[in-house]
Amino acid sequence: MEDALRYADDHQDRFTGELEELLRIPSISTDPEYADDVQQAANWLASHLRSVGLAGVEVCQTDGHPIVYGEDLRAGEEAPTVLVYGHYDVQPPDPLELWDSPPFEPTRQNGDGHAEAIYARGACDDKGQMFMHVKAAESYLAADGEGGALPVNLKFLIEGEEESGSVHLAPFIEDHKDRLDADVVLISDTGMFAEGVPSITYGLRGLAYVEVTLTGPERDLHSGLFGGAVENPANALARLIAGLHDADHRVAVEGFYDDVQDLTDEERQTFQKLPFDEADWREEISLKESKTEAGYGVLEAVGARPTLDVNGLASGYQGEGAKTVLPAKASAKISCRLVPDQTPDDIAAKLERYFEKHVPSTMRLEFERLHGGQPALIDTESDAMQAAADAMEGVYGRRPFFTREGGTIPVVADFKNLLGLDTVLMGFGLESDAIHSPNEHFGLGRFREGIQSIIRFHQRYAERR
Amino acid sequence: MEDALRYADDHQDRFTGELEELLRIPSISTDPEYADDVQQAANWLASHLRSVGLAGVEVCQTDGHPIVYGEDLRAGEEAPTVLVYGHYDVQPPDPLELWDSPPFEPTRQNGDGHAEAIYARGACDDKGQMFMHVKAAESYLAADGEGGALPVNLKFLIEGEEESGSVHLAPFIEDHKDRLDADVVLISDTGMFAEGVPSITYGLRGLAYVEVTLTGPERDLHSGLFGGAVENPANALARLIAGLHDADHRVAVEGFYDDVQDLTDEERQTFQKLPFDEADWREEISLKESKTEAGYGVLEAVGARPTLDVNGLASGYQGEGAKTVLPAKASAKISCRLVPDQTPDDIAAKLERYFEKHVPSTMRLEFERLHGGQPALIDTESDAMQAAADAMEGVYGRRPFFTREGGTIPVVADFKNLLGLDTVLMGFGLESDAIHSPNEHFGLGRFREGIQSIIRFHQRYAERR
Repeated sequence: MEDALRYADDHQDRFTGELEELLRIPSISTDPEYADDVQQAANWLASHLRSVGLAGVEVCQTDGHPIVYGEDLRAGEEAPTVLVYGHYDVQPPDPLELWDSPPFEPTRQNGDGHAEAIYARGACDDKGQMFMHVKAAESYLAADGEGGALPVNLKFLIEGEEESGSVHLAPFIEDHKDRLDADVVLISDTGMFAEGVPSITYGLRGLAYVEVTLTGPERDLHSGLFGGAVENPANALARLIAGLHDADHRVAVEGFYDDVQDLTDEERQTFQKLPFDEADWREEISLKESKTEAGYGVLEAVGARPTLDVNGLASGYQGEGAKTVLPAKASAKISCRLVPDQTPDDIAAKLERYFEKHVPSTMRLEFERLHGGQPALIDTESDAMQAAADAMEGVYGRRPFFTREGGTIPVVADFKNLLGLDTVLMGFGLESDAIHSPNEHFGLGRFREGIQSIIRFHQRYAERR
Repeated sequence: MEDALRYADDHQDRFTGELEELLRIPSISTDPEYADDVQQAANWLASHLRSVGLAGVEVCQTDGHPIVYGEDLRAGEEAPTVLVYGHYDVQPPDPLELWDSPPFEPTRQNGDGHAEAIYARGACDDKGQMFMHVKAAESYLAADGEGGALPVNLKFLIEGEEESGSVHLAPFIEDHKDRLDADVVLISDTGMFAEGVPSITYGLRGLAYVEVTLTGPERDLHSGLFGGAVENPANALARLIAGLHDADHRVAVEGFYDDVQDLTDEERQTFQKLPFDEADWREEISLKESKTEAGYGVLEAVGARPTLDVNGLASGYQGEGAKTVLPAKASAKISCRLVPDQTPDDIAAKLERYFEKHVPSTMRLEFERLHGGQPALIDTESDAMQAAADAMEGVYGRRPFFTREGGTIPVVADFKNLLGLDTVLMGFGLESDAIHSPNEHFGLGRFREGIQSIIRFHQRYAERR
């Protein structure tokens, strides 16, 4: 392990340059126009896995974007097997005009008062974090002193559809249960509590994402000639959206909270202990004031309570100036973050019933389920979770907090359901990394700390087993 | 007059071809990218006015798009003077994908069961209708038998900013009161009741058009990492918009109806007499069901009651698929149609107070007044109105109805206030012409009938005075 840690430090600059190569490929999985780029990113990654010495490397085609696989099983049957999951696809970069540097031209900058970072779409989510695992493996395989051996068997499963719902991942896992057999799943696609404050995520929220469209007249109408006699889909959609929350900022959809596991007293106490400064947090995102469901603090609301947010609205004329149009249709992208034991199917169905019940009789409703993911809670006492805590303690000099995080990694539920595997979420992102936003970035210090932590994890996990 | 009527009929084909030339110029006044095209349309029109024999033709530059002027004053002081107003600018053509033929490549087609029509942006509103006046003048000036004389003095004032708020028109009128002095204003920029059913508009609604933007966090956020603790501007905007109407489909903004002149019993009876078939009207726009303010029929609601409509909504991610963003901002274009004695300034101020009162404390409000227009009611017993009725009766063989129309022509109030002139609205549009919508068109039959009616108007107005 020591040789690997040293090798990684000695080659950190080259590692960063290689990551930049990958970041240059605009592998936006939600937009069909970028399909070739997604394929190119898969090919680049596969060839890179081969170059660091992994075996069985394959770009596995699916009905969507490809999955990249690679492995090193030379640790043998006595050693445990770690399945590393990550994704090489990225979110769309819009709104483009808010980026200070082009999203697919990685730029190294010092953030305001922060350490040096790489700015690019995917720098943190998840190319940067995924690539740390590749470099940790290389560090074991290439380090002279240890004869190129990993302390664990390692399998890489890197998909290209995480940002578009991972629709072909579960079938792939199902079809390759033997090949993917392991003892634990290791993922770096979450955050740590703060710079220098390590944490491991033991809870994730789920997701139910839908799109709703109301159509009134067949075509856009002149608001003077028709206004007053034709119900306006944009006004009606606003009314329906307004009805989705009550005055306590709770979701007003019937049955929404039926399956929610309430926070235990112990969990609420853990939230209290976290070194969280709301003023700093607000300043980070230039927010005047936070707003949570009545009775819950910021961390509780984000980590352990379900939500409903409009992600996009579109209707009528959106260009410069005024157009006196009565829009034919209005649509909203709406998503709920879910907590155990809510399920995406059930919540989407409840949302659909809400809209069906309230759609005005003058209009037609289209309701489309775009994607979903299960929420998850993971046992913090397992060997793998404790090995991860040891590893991060080795790098940061302090024991990590166990936290619940507001984001969604649906594969965590898939790995549990399909392979019977628990997942360790060892994340190195920060909220200020602006993932899914303009000027996404990832600190070079954390890129290094991540690699070091992963190298330590493999060793500790092999020892603990 | 007979010679002019005959000349117009003999040259109808050429007239149509000339109109098509003008329709090819994309003179979209709201979009700065088309400024050169707007100028080109003005130049084309000026040169055309000269070619038909008008004097004093000038492309008058303003701080915005130019105004085209031309005149023929040879009828002398004994004859009345008619000031023709029209506009050569057009609405943006979006959504482009819904046009069956390119909006700026005029195409002659037979509509579904309708007469032959020209399809192009501006075919009806207002290039087609404005151009009828030019061709009516040409018909008098070029017809052999009458020695090229008009029975009235004629002045043309054709602007290029009607679709963007006519912001430079009122100052221009003020600066050129002498040049524009006349006895009546004549405009063809409204509709007739139905194909073959002539009508003259005596009432117009006004307009107050605003844009509202709510900004929460500084940048778009990840809905997982922040959702639950940050109030969502799109949800909040929906709530504010929902509050703009009550359950009776009345506008719920405080004081909105304070200055509304209620319909008289006589006016309500006139509305009742109009040959209106709601089922046909609904079918024309593929509408399931109409929706009016409680207590008012479709024609009353559109012609004589004020409204509030969202014209555009924009927030967050609007592309393909799903993006889990918590939007930094959400904006709506909102406009009210006004009736006497509401004023755009007063209603915009009341809207602004509504939004200021209800904007969540977590957000910043921007409220912008985009444009406005005064409502108008015109005396139906004047010489000019009766001359227009005579003229249309001469063409259609039946006396036109006097109607109130839902659209806005703010210059009608400007002509009254600045020049003391009443306006005759002799319109030949139909609701099915799809003005401001994809596939705008204008029937060739109505283009001919319009020219014939205008030729008759000049003669009848000269006789009646």
